[in-house]
Amino acid sequence: MNLALLFDDDFRSPGRAVLSGRRLAHLHSVLKAAEGDRIPVGQVNGRIGEGHILRLDDREAELAVTLDSPPPPPLPLTLILAMPRPKMFRRVLQTCASLGVKDIWLINAYKVEKSFWQTPWLTEEHLRENLTLGLEQARDTALPAVHVRKLFKPFVEDELPGLLAGKRGLVAHPGTATRCPAGLDEPAVLCIGPEGGFTPYEVTKLAEAGCEQVHLGSRILRVETAVPVLISRLYDSCNF
Amino acid sequence: MNLALLFDDDFRSPGRAVLSGRRLAHLHSVLKAAEGDRIPVGQVNGRIGEGHILRLDDREAELAVTLDSPPPPPLPLTLILAMPRPKMFRRVLQTCASLGVKDIWLINAYKVEKSFWQTPWLTEEHLRENLTLGLEQARDTALPAVHVRKLFKPFVEDELPGLLAGKRGLVAHPGTATRCPAGLDEPAVLCIGPEGGFTPYEVTKLAEAGCEQVHLGSRILRVETAVPVLISRLYDSCNF
Repeated sequence: MNLALLFDDDFRSPGRAVLSGRRLAHLHSVLKAAEGDRIPVGQVNGRIGEGHILRLDDREAELAVTLDSPPPPPLPLTLILAMPRPKMFRRVLQTCASLGVKDIWLINAYKVEKSFWQTPWLTEEHLRENLTLGLEQARDTALPAVHVRKLFKPFVEDELPGLLAGKRGLVAHPGTATRCPAGLDEPAVLCIGPEGGFTPYEVTKLAEAGCEQVHLGSRILRVETAVPVLISRLYDSCNF
Repeated sequence: MNLALLFDDDFRSPGRAVLSGRRLAHLHSVLKAAEGDRIPVGQVNGRIGEGHILRLDDREAELAVTLDSPPPPPLPLTLILAMPRPKMFRRVLQTCASLGVKDIWLINAYKVEKSFWQTPWLTEEHLRENLTLGLEQARDTALPAVHVRKLFKPFVEDELPGLLAGKRGLVAHPGTATRCPAGLDEPAVLCIGPEGGFTPYEVTKLAEAGCEQVHLGSRILRVETAVPVLISRLYDSCNF
């Protein structure tokens, strides 16, 4: 069962929360919840626990909330993605949130279509909504940070070296000689290119900043498949 | 660049194929192809190579085809999925095909909504279309087999033991004690439940047939995320 993620303004007092909107609709239509039921809840960026439904009607649900457990550990991974196609971007965000990625950078690349940056999925509200869906699926509470960088060169030259400090830097690029490492025991920064890949210039710039080029075999995967495949290869899911 | 997958009836003669429909549209609108261009092609269940565009207009494209390389190796995995929600099912099929899964069984379970079985995505034509999209993405040619089993109990009692013979049988089920194994060097059969999971009865039947219950950590994943995460854990992507 998904978690209901509670935000600060849902709380009327410590231990008492009121839900409406999407989460109320979910209680009614998916969970078929009733007064007296207990459901998994979590406080954003806080602990997880249980919500006891005290009151439930068409307008709102009132929960007595006990938060007694930590959320699952975060992945020690910074993910840098050339901005994906909008529909896929929504799903990738949800996937990242459910897998425990807490730091996501969306960057430009030559093969990123300009129109991708116009997507409404990039508004603060929509970003939060999709990240929340992923967190609720996986029963996590720590909201990932999403950074938008529409200029490739300034990002790679001025910011990326700092992000890489003390971490293993990787750019997943088909055709390279080196296999992607497996089972890391250190934090990493992973760059994934657009459909059609990073250009040779872009790969060079990423390498200059400190990223090692690695491949995942001969099968070319869409970014929404590559992300879970790479994450599962880099880190043991059972630990996160 | 995606492969264009050529079926037997595309060939006018050995080495000469004619494309129309979706693949012609792709040549025009995505690849912006022109006469003289060379594109990656593969023969279904055969080798991969190159198509040299001899003739290209609004109705068809004629290619001189040379097939000189084997496709990537198949995954030694049989995937048994409780029938997913239709929109997700399309994507899961494409993901399975792109990752190299060649044997897919769609089974019923208590929490599979009856309406899922009505989806048009289960027609032979649509199955082939989505598997083809996945193969073209990953540049593979071997078409996966898809088997539909709408009755859980007869499948698990009468067919599953035979599928498991000589293979490692696994059912991914949250909350179990045992971690999902990693880096197998043997063929496996992997069962994944519906949203909400297999029921205790279903897990017991799968165990009786010979499947070991394993978990993937505390994060509950949607099936379209669980499939690539599990496959990447079980087998080294770089070898397939």
